Amino acid sequence: MVESWSFLDTVESNFRPLVVIELAKGTKQETIEWFTKRIVDKKANGGAQLLIKPLVMENGVENIYLVGASHLRLLLGAETVGLVKECSDNSMRAFTYSSRKTFKHFADDNHNFLTMAECQYIIKHELENLRAKNEKMIPGYPQAKLYPGKSIVRRLLTSGILVQIFPLHDREELKKLSHSWYGRVKVGYQPLDDIRCYFGETIALYFGFLEYFTFALIPMAVIGIPYYVFAWEDYDKYVMFATFNLLWSTVILEVWKRICAILTYRWGTLLMKRQFEEPRPGFHGVLGINPVTGREEPVYSSVKRQLRIYLVSLPFVCLCLYFSLYVMMIYFDLEQWALDYHEENESNFSSLMLYVPSIIYAVVIEIMNRIYRYAAEFLTSWENHRLESSYQNHLILKVLVFNFLNCFASLFYIAFVLFDMKLLRQSLATLLITSQILNQFAESLLPYWLQKRYNRRMKKRMCSKKTDMDLSLAEQVNMEKEMGTYLGTFDDYLELFLQFGYVSLFSCVYPLAAVFAVLNNITEIYSDALKMCRVYKRPFAEPTANIGVWQLAFETMSVISVVTNCILIGMSPEVDALFPDSKMDLVLTVALVEHLLLAIKFIMAFVIPDQPKDIQMKLARLEFESLEALKQQVRAFQMQLHFLFMHR
Amino acid sequence: MVESWSFLDTVESNFRPLVVIELAKGTKQETIEWFTKRIVDKKANGGAQLLIKPLVMENGVENIYLVGASHLRLLLGAETVGLVKECSDNSMRAFTYSSRKTFKHFADDNHNFLTMAECQYIIKHELENLRAKNEKMIPGYPQAKLYPGKSIVRRLLTSGILVQIFPLHDREELKKLSHSWYGRVKVGYQPLDDIRCYFGETIALYFGFLEYFTFALIPMAVIGIPYYVFAWEDYDKYVMFATFNLLWSTVILEVWKRICAILTYRWGTLLMKRQFEEPRPGFHGVLGINPVTGREEPVYSSVKRQLRIYLVSLPFVCLCLYFSLYVMMIYFDLEQWALDYHEENESNFSSLMLYVPSIIYAVVIEIMNRIYRYAAEFLTSWENHRLESSYQNHLILKVLVFNFLNCFASLFYIAFVLFDMKLLRQSLATLLITSQILNQFAESLLPYWLQKRYNRRMKKRMCSKKTDMDLSLAEQVNMEKEMGTYLGTFDDYLELFLQFGYVSLFSCVYPLAAVFAVLNNITEIYSDALKMCRVYKRPFAEPTANIGVWQLAFETMSVISVVTNCILIGMSPEVDALFPDSKMDLVLTVALVEHLLLAIKFIMAFVIPDQPKDIQMKLARLEFESLEALKQQVRAFQMQLHFLFMHR
Repeated sequence: MVESWSFLDTVESNFRPLVVIELAKGTKQETIEWFTKRIVDKKANGGAQLLIKPLVMENGVENIYLVGASHLRLLLGAETVGLVKECSDNSMRAFTYSSRKTFKHFADDNHNFLTMAECQYIIKHELENLRAKNEKMIPGYPQAKLYPGKSIVRRLLTSGILVQIFPLHDREELKKLSHSWYGRVKVGYQPLDDIRCYFGETIALYFGFLEYFTFALIPMAVIGIPYYVFAWEDYDKYVMFATFNLLWSTVILEVWKRICAILTYRWGTLLMKRQFEEPRPGFHGVLGINPVTGREEPVYSSVKRQLRIYLVSLPFVCLCLYFSLYVMMIYFDLEQWALDYHEENESNFSSLMLYVPSIIYAVVIEIMNRIYRYAAEFLTSWENHRLESSYQNHLILKVLVFNFLNCFASLFYIAFVLFDMKLLRQSLATLLITSQILNQFAESLLPYWLQKRYNRRMKKRMCSKKTDMDLSLAEQVNMEKEMGTYLGTFDDYLELFLQFGYVSLFSCVYPLAAVFAVLNNITEIYSDALKMCRVYKRPFAEPTANIGVWQLAFETMSVISVVTNCILIGMSPEVDALFPDSKMDLVLTVALVEHLLLAIKFIMAFVIPDQPKDIQMKLARLEFESLEALKQQVRAFQMQLHFLFMHR
Repeated sequence: MVESWSFLDTVESNFRPLVVIELAKGTKQETIEWFTKRIVDKKANGGAQLLIKPLVMENGVENIYLVGASHLRLLLGAETVGLVKECSDNSMRAFTYSSRKTFKHFADDNHNFLTMAECQYIIKHELENLRAKNEKMIPGYPQAKLYPGKSIVRRLLTSGILVQIFPLHDREELKKLSHSWYGRVKVGYQPLDDIRCYFGETIALYFGFLEYFTFALIPMAVIGIPYYVFAWEDYDKYVMFATFNLLWSTVILEVWKRICAILTYRWGTLLMKRQFEEPRPGFHGVLGINPVTGREEPVYSSVKRQLRIYLVSLPFVCLCLYFSLYVMMIYFDLEQWALDYHEENESNFSSLMLYVPSIIYAVVIEIMNRIYRYAAEFLTSWENHRLESSYQNHLILKVLVFNFLNCFASLFYIAFVLFDMKLLRQSLATLLITSQILNQFAESLLPYWLQKRYNRRMKKRMCSKKTDMDLSLAEQVNMEKEMGTYLGTFDDYLELFLQFGYVSLFSCVYPLAAVFAVLNNITEIYSDALKMCRVYKRPFAEPTANIGVWQLAFETMSVISVVTNCILIGMSPEVDALFPDSKMDLVLTVALVEHLLLAIKFIMAFVIPDQPKDIQMKLARLEFESLEALKQQVRAFQMQLHFLFMHR
């Protein structure tokens, strides 16, 4: 069967498996034949022109296929997806097959010009862009409707015929990477370029941000320690620490944009052109004409979506917020009860008991966050957004608002309603530390342990004592397909976002928060790295030029923290003592300082350029060149015309 | 001489003069010959391929030249500058000569396809892009150095050989336009599309903004009148008015962005690609290599420029600000003196005298603004910015900061230091009305009157009683070249900006400000229109897609006005009376309300899309088409390659 599929097989004798396709067990033969035919078919016939081979398992079941592509096909695909690579003259340019010789490290026989992650991304892109021509349904499955232009892979996924598509790990590379990444305890930077080569830009950028953020917190931690140890709570030192924190948080967010530009310029994604966004897989509606593309595709009324958002989602979110506040009030009752208990029978046990409500509350917060997360995903998906980006924005907004309130409402209440600084400090510390411990456990250690146990059982069943490196391809695929799927960087960024809130919102009350954040982030780097390399299936690389909406989220948090810190400083008895005659002057001074700080913040954000000078220069150079090329084209055309014109 | 210049003359027999070039009297013949040869030379030889004719004046002096171009040349030029025109299917597309048949109203013999303003813009662009090849200097003027790539016209201008280049008026069109624009008193919109056809997008957009802003102020004026007439100063009505103002000012600025997008989409400039920015004419430095273009051009060290900015300009601006505050204090002394005088001898004269200090101060403010304007221009030009945009930004920043302080410092002082609401109201009214009268006079009526007198004298000298329409070309050119030059929309926007400040900063104290602003703007439309049509030379059209930095300036003003209005409301005795027990609660409430309003403002700015849905759709459609075209190209190329690959 395989021989008839593709002429390319004869050309490319060394088939390198890149991506695994797992079909449902018992998929009809005609469906398999049709699907594989479409994958290997020539581009001109509407195929993807890739290579595919079935993987014969021990038990003889044939539902797993390996996809690869010829070297030439991958290079042409790199042009289609718009990959940007480094040229021999060190400039970054969009790769085109015709100009391939001008690129660094390019040679016709150098199969490492494209990294494995890039090859896998190209194959994913080509598979997803495999579109129905005249098929009305998937052969063998009349209920799985198709229409011209519908992505076949997406329909197969939504109708359950296709179980999953995932890229294969490269055991050797992975071992090298994990050794240099977390294999030894060392002081230094992560191998970001290697991470990017293996996992793609989105994940590398997350680790870059995590590392940057950790380094950026160190000055705050270093300054915070003596404040805590010597209990410096004089007015001037206090104000200095808070002011430093505020300006610092503005600076680090601005500087991150510049570092991000440096990284993504080096990786080529800063220059990558945005692809036209197709509807997301889950989007459904009645067939209609898309006014932008003029193509037939499902259309869903925007009014209906708005109704779902405002009549269902919004009330639901409000209800959740109310519930979260209700839980908070229960926590305060518990707190009061613990305090009363401690006062009645003063003992070591009772003073320990003082921390129990906070710990319980922290656990409850984590649980509520996780449950809400599922609800938000369900609701946003039910809102039926056409584009993935719009889905993501609505999801992130929902989750951020709830998590912010859920995590920080009790702290705001303690600070600005109860005015109890001691309780605030204790509560903040308990919440921060408990949530960090829970997160580390839930995110990495638990899945790692489960995975380890599963692997051990697998290996036992195979009755061999091979190491990972010696596994046959079939065994490797079999093992990897059972691994969990990494769901993207959302949760990781969210965790950092909440941590940033704990550190910055009440920084002047608990200077030690930054220290805990730094310690957590150092272990976080290791546990996240472990998770990526050992626990999850390899994720597909996703090119990205920045951290997107998270930049905005962090900036908003830092604006809020200016307000909270100013109020906290104004409330401190030391500052109070400076205005013995008039409370009024105190409040006015605090308000004035707050406005000044906010103004400075905005001016700083405006004045610090988002890209370093040399990157700006390189971008200007590229723009100039493309404009020049256009001009040359026009000029050549004009001369041609002029020639015709003179000789008519 | 003319015959030998251009072969195109024989083709295009009907030479239509578009642009006038005035050389200095006594310019050497070799220079004239070289310059005119370069203008008519073929593109391939580095010329501009335009048509030029000397204008023989009565006195036989030949220093004025008329420039035109063949119809074909203009069409090719339209492609070079990237004009966007409407297609037959109502979509907007960049004009290319090869696709000319698809454009609306295009016919090979329709010479009105491009408007006269567009033709003049194209000629200006071509003249400015006439660049030196191997010339080391301008022939005949060894001190006027050239280097390869230097714009010849700019060097001629800076060395005084070229006096001016300006586009000719079209008397007939101008008469039609002025009739429909300001010729009759009518209620309705300005003919913005006609204005844009005649004067270009930048000026049309200014008038569009002026009109929009006037309409937007009407609701504030209408609500403001009863407040003033019935002296409604109760707490709830007061707060309602201010809150309405704040939200209103946010809404109008956001809605303007959308209207601006609609206008510039219709005019094609929203889609126009940005041209690569060349150094501004006044920029000088030692010859070096531009790192972006790789071309030889003057280079000026950025460190030197920074030093000039921070060591000279910044201290100078601070000094001016100090001086302005000093003048303000003198004004308060005068005010006190007038008050004392009024108290001593109470009479009608003395109560009139109360207004004199404010009027004098308003006049002094206007004079200081104008003097500072010149100083700022001189300083910014001395800072030697390479790009026009960077020059403009530094100039605007300098001028805005000074004008803001100069105009509003006294009001801030009265409001927040003296707490004298009565004086604030009186001062605000006097400043606003005086500055409006002065501006109207200085901007339009005075130049109009001078121009009128000059024209009358001119005509008398010509000993004829012809109307404007019957003037010969020579007479027209002679008259227009003596007219003043319109220096751009800067001063007009600045006036609106300060007006917006008067209206919004203290709106709740003087609700009548909006009424005066509306009245002023209605006459402003007429006087500005008169100024454009009758007083000044025709300006070159400048394509633009938005009002640029002024959007930011207006938004900043509206943020500041939230703060000032909240404080003013908090200070009013009615609000004061609501918190009889504790001043503290009052201040805290005001601060809370202010933060809420600011938050609402930012969220509104974020939520309201900058472009209306249909424009977004059209832009998405264009983007989709260009991506599809690119894909098609890649696909065709891949199939070609594949073919080669199979048959090798």
